[in-house]
Amino acid sequence: MWPNPSPVSAFAERRRRLQDRLQGAAVFAAGLARPRNFPANRYPFRAESHFLYLVGMGIEGAVLVMTPESSTLYAPAPHPDAALWSGPQPTLSELEAERGIAVKPIEEFAAPAEAAVLPPQDEGSALWLGELLDRDIEPGRGNRVEGADQRLAELMIELRLRHDAAAIEQLRQAASAAELAHRAGMSATAPGMREAGVRAAMEAAIVASGMCPSYNSIVTVHGEVLHNEYHHNLIGPTDLVLADVGAETPEGWASDVTRAWPVSGTFSATQRALYEVVLAAQLSAIDAVRPGARYRDVHRQTGKRLLEGLIALGIFRGDVDELYERGAAALFFPHGVGHLLGLDVHDMEDLGDRAGYAPGRARAKSRGDRYLRLDRDLEPGMAVTIEPGFYRIPRLLDDPAEVSDLESALDRTVLARFADVRGIRIEDDVLVTESGAEVLTRGVPKTLDEVEAAMR
Amino acid sequence: MWPNPSPVSAFAERRRRLQDRLQGAAVFAAGLARPRNFPANRYPFRAESHFLYLVGMGIEGAVLVMTPESSTLYAPAPHPDAALWSGPQPTLSELEAERGIAVKPIEEFAAPAEAAVLPPQDEGSALWLGELLDRDIEPGRGNRVEGADQRLAELMIELRLRHDAAAIEQLRQAASAAELAHRAGMSATAPGMREAGVRAAMEAAIVASGMCPSYNSIVTVHGEVLHNEYHHNLIGPTDLVLADVGAETPEGWASDVTRAWPVSGTFSATQRALYEVVLAAQLSAIDAVRPGARYRDVHRQTGKRLLEGLIALGIFRGDVDELYERGAAALFFPHGVGHLLGLDVHDMEDLGDRAGYAPGRARAKSRGDRYLRLDRDLEPGMAVTIEPGFYRIPRLLDDPAEVSDLESALDRTVLARFADVRGIRIEDDVLVTESGAEVLTRGVPKTLDEVEAAMR
Repeated sequence: MWPNPSPVSAFAERRRRLQDRLQGAAVFAAGLARPRNFPANRYPFRAESHFLYLVGMGIEGAVLVMTPESSTLYAPAPHPDAALWSGPQPTLSELEAERGIAVKPIEEFAAPAEAAVLPPQDEGSALWLGELLDRDIEPGRGNRVEGADQRLAELMIELRLRHDAAAIEQLRQAASAAELAHRAGMSATAPGMREAGVRAAMEAAIVASGMCPSYNSIVTVHGEVLHNEYHHNLIGPTDLVLADVGAETPEGWASDVTRAWPVSGTFSATQRALYEVVLAAQLSAIDAVRPGARYRDVHRQTGKRLLEGLIALGIFRGDVDELYERGAAALFFPHGVGHLLGLDVHDMEDLGDRAGYAPGRARAKSRGDRYLRLDRDLEPGMAVTIEPGFYRIPRLLDDPAEVSDLESALDRTVLARFADVRGIRIEDDVLVTESGAEVLTRGVPKTLDEVEAAMR
Repeated sequence: MWPNPSPVSAFAERRRRLQDRLQGAAVFAAGLARPRNFPANRYPFRAESHFLYLVGMGIEGAVLVMTPESSTLYAPAPHPDAALWSGPQPTLSELEAERGIAVKPIEEFAAPAEAAVLPPQDEGSALWLGELLDRDIEPGRGNRVEGADQRLAELMIELRLRHDAAAIEQLRQAASAAELAHRAGMSATAPGMREAGVRAAMEAAIVASGMCPSYNSIVTVHGEVLHNEYHHNLIGPTDLVLADVGAETPEGWASDVTRAWPVSGTFSATQRALYEVVLAAQLSAIDAVRPGARYRDVHRQTGKRLLEGLIALGIFRGDVDELYERGAAALFFPHGVGHLLGLDVHDMEDLGDRAGYAPGRARAKSRGDRYLRLDRDLEPGMAVTIEPGFYRIPRLLDDPAEVSDLESALDRTVLARFADVRGIRIEDDVLVTESGAEVLTRGVPKTLDEVEAAMR
């Protein structure tokens, strides 16, 4: 596969929608590339998401200026040596014609009075933008923006929460590349390899598709480490591989997909049993995704479905609702059931919880809910992940304070029989539709049979 | 293959050598990870090279404090939640035992009086270090350091210019991974693919080897664009693929390798002729690498050997030396023959030209030399790249000011016959030995026969 760009009209339409809502000027920064170990060796440039949303391409050192009446892109003209080192670059007038937006040299940029801005992510870009605007800009850390900046953040959330047709098409493409990656990973897995070998096969499928990973890939036999970014372990014949790997299109749109598969190619009876518990919870959560559903309810329902499964297996004893209230689900599933998905894999998390939590709602402190990144009533056009898991985490299970009064309900003898499961997570990308939900990542093998078939 | 870590004693020995030369305190910062599109989505952390040289592992947010008498590492203690999200982390006392260096919590760090520092690369790390030291730290942009900082830079250059046994072993490992990558690229290439498909195969070989690319890979059918980072072009049946792809070990040591190969699997007569011109120049340059040789002379000699070849093919008419003085070599080979190699792919370029240029030498302004990154007398233990090329660059050939008085010596009719060559570069990593040179990347197919065999 190869990415299709969005029509230029999609960005004009987004700018128009924003212009209609703007009360003053707003400046959107693309940002600067980050140096790695010396100035000329830089991490691949990735523009700020709000800029990508409105412009559709990352142009390092550019700013988009919008007022209720107009949109102007200020960009650096190609350096004379660029043709030698980086190949022919479009001139600013070619860029103007190609992107359908007024383009001027960045040298002509003059900060509009009282322009609202959203902070860029890194200190270097924040300093650069601050110099352009002649005001202090702190890099985005979540919740700091105020006044006109805060109103601009709310406007962008209003626009970006529900995806337009071009955005949905981008999400589909990112999902397709993730499917290729997960199929490649399943197919490449063999005992005796390192985790890095599976990761390499998965990321190669993404790179060959003209995309890049949308976050640092998790590919591990230690799925119980939730954000495990090490890939050095040898893969044993009875292990499960957990892979949380997604793709990002050149316009910046993300997929976020997790699967777990047996190295041997066949789930053991114990792996099968726990996989089916997680899968049933995941399918029930997807079933619950529809307009009007409150996401926190989906999260809680998922925890209860997991508990039902664990009770049926004999790992827990007791009443589902009562165990849930005591935090039993979070002992094996200590994270949220998912989050917003869009240009960012946790969409708009640069604005903190403001995008994920509806006005008047805030993150709970309880063990079951504290890591939940989203609590909104779902609306058509929103995209979310649905990603329950089951993990045997020594840090939790070996700590009396964490297990607490659940010890009496937990059958450790039964749990010990599932020693060949350390972590399972099943994660899909789900688009809320008028009538319910569409699984964007439905092509990724998921049922026991599909996974085993993909490994043959 | 899988990377072998250096013995811990190698870092103790490096610190001892530095301590012996220090006149006051010095602080080496590991730096901070750079955020990508939101705070939790970060580029893979890569510590500052000077820190890696002395400590051997990247520890985000750590600083190494050295005085003539002692070395102490100040590091953040693992966060209590780290075991849940990132897996079990070594405690500071485990780190102390494992690394053989005194380790204290970063909270106990107190800036030594008048400590010298080398600036970190990005604004975020510079601000963080500045707060730790209570002084202004500008991010490293090359040549700004002064006073004690400058003396520390000179000391580090003195240590790092000649590689010790552990460093050479790391360079060998990085070279081996580059060999796997280039063999994978040659083997994967087929007409009708995108460049991204070849890049994917090459980087997968590096990732599967437990390493990462040491710089943004160049994999292109437009080799005439010197730093082409696009990978979208379709690969045509008569194209050459130029791939400049290197690996970095977990301790940070780099390889840097370029090859060009024919998509069809067989060089055409014209590709063969020009490839042999570049190869002869490259082999002659490697022959010239030995203790005492001045690198700029190697560069100039290489340009002359290229000109000899081009004269023999009829592309130029005239006398080699006279044409060289008129800038004829730079018309087709407009960059330097190579650079230092070590922890950085352009080693110590964070210190500007100070490492690459011997005291009293400076970069020339002439067309032939202005992009030369290195002009030292070579010494045993130095590692350099040797990377001549031949490029048909429209930006140069179509500009009368660039061609200038060379037009009369240039036979454009003959040149036009080589239309199926846009860019060839042949780059190896070369270690200066007591008696001459050792090509660290000698396993990468290079002769016409070797390349064609690797594609079968």
